[in-house]
Amino acid sequence: MEKQDLLYEGKSKKVYATNDPARLIVAYKDEKGAVNNHISNAVMRMLEREGVPTHLVRQMSERETVVRRVRMIPLEIIVRNVVAGKLSTLIGQPEGTRLRSPVLEYRYKAALLGNPMINRFHVFALELCTPEMLDEIDRLAFRINKILKQQLLRAGIRLIDCKLEFGCLPDGSIVLADEISPDTSRLWDAETGRKLGKDRFRRDLSNTIDAYQEILDRLERIHCS
Amino acid sequence: MEKQDLLYEGKSKKVYATNDPARLIVAYKDEKGAVNNHISNAVMRMLEREGVPTHLVRQMSERETVVRRVRMIPLEIIVRNVVAGKLSTLIGQPEGTRLRSPVLEYRYKAALLGNPMINRFHVFALELCTPEMLDEIDRLAFRINKILKQQLLRAGIRLIDCKLEFGCLPDGSIVLADEISPDTSRLWDAETGRKLGKDRFRRDLSNTIDAYQEILDRLERIHCS
Repeated sequence: MEKQDLLYEGKSKKVYATNDPARLIVAYKDEKGAVNNHISNAVMRMLEREGVPTHLVRQMSERETVVRRVRMIPLEIIVRNVVAGKLSTLIGQPEGTRLRSPVLEYRYKAALLGNPMINRFHVFALELCTPEMLDEIDRLAFRINKILKQQLLRAGIRLIDCKLEFGCLPDGSIVLADEISPDTSRLWDAETGRKLGKDRFRRDLSNTIDAYQEILDRLERIHCS
Repeated sequence: MEKQDLLYEGKSKKVYATNDPARLIVAYKDEKGAVNNHISNAVMRMLEREGVPTHLVRQMSERETVVRRVRMIPLEIIVRNVVAGKLSTLIGQPEGTRLRSPVLEYRYKAALLGNPMINRFHVFALELCTPEMLDEIDRLAFRINKILKQQLLRAGIRLIDCKLEFGCLPDGSIVLADEISPDTSRLWDAETGRKLGKDRFRRDLSNTIDAYQEILDRLERIHCS
């Protein structure tokens, strides 16, 4: 598998075409990205074992992973189990309030608009995907949340919320894509409530890497990877 | 039917209990309210004829109407046919863009939070109503929008968007409540695109009343009332 054209560059990773038109290479840019690469791949392998289709093919190196080429659906799907972040202000409930039922939110990936929260009717009016595709995305998002919540709890971690992105294969089927890592989810220690992910360590990179490594170690202890 | 305790007072109307525990009296406060009273009742009668259940019982006077007592569901349902107002900023499309399919939005009636836009998962987590109730509200909202759009067009008026509120009868069934008037909807002249409702005349009350009276006259010409 060889890297070809750079297709996309974000804050934390680059995505390359390869000699196989059905495959891409994701390359994380830094040391924190290397840990995220390991975590995201461990989580995706765990989800695959539970029957959730993902874009993962195989990890190539510390910072590089081969993934299936998909048409990305321009939505961030937020799944929430506990009130935190913007939701606290939106509905006027304190951070830490357990939600009666998991909440899905759709954010339209349009940086110039600030990735606004929209609803399913906006999704259809904007033709971001079909109703059938969004139903499948909802179903997968709830299922992924249920599996992650249970597995993370075995590692002593409480899943507060996470961000998911999905893509569409040439045959029209939906798979989980992008990454699942402490950069894209809120993780609290199940015993102490201590924040383990991006919330706590945002300002200090070496602490962040330690914290992310701790999450990876905990996942490996429960045989996620 | 006699007025008893004042149950609610808003900007434009007061709601009273009556000697019948299943009935309330809505009293509009001013001259514009009197026109809204006529318009809202004409629209609700038209919807009733098309099989949409509403809270309307009968108009008592210029400014007063008897309605069924319902448990209000704390949601504003916005139905949109054309991009206008906040939606234009949210999704980055110019005012006047026709939507491919009508868009529903839910606003949580919580003044201290600024009546935020939420989605159906928030509605369930906040226990504002059950999934079955919200499905029925969606169905009624789309049906009301379809009827209104057609009937208003016969009066030379284009329905851009409108706000609906629903209530629950003691037997659990859902009925349209509150008011439907130029105060709660965007109405544009179908020929010229001239704004007929609240948008255009917000600053000048006598102009507003003239404009609202024009809408009422047009509705009466198509035998809405």
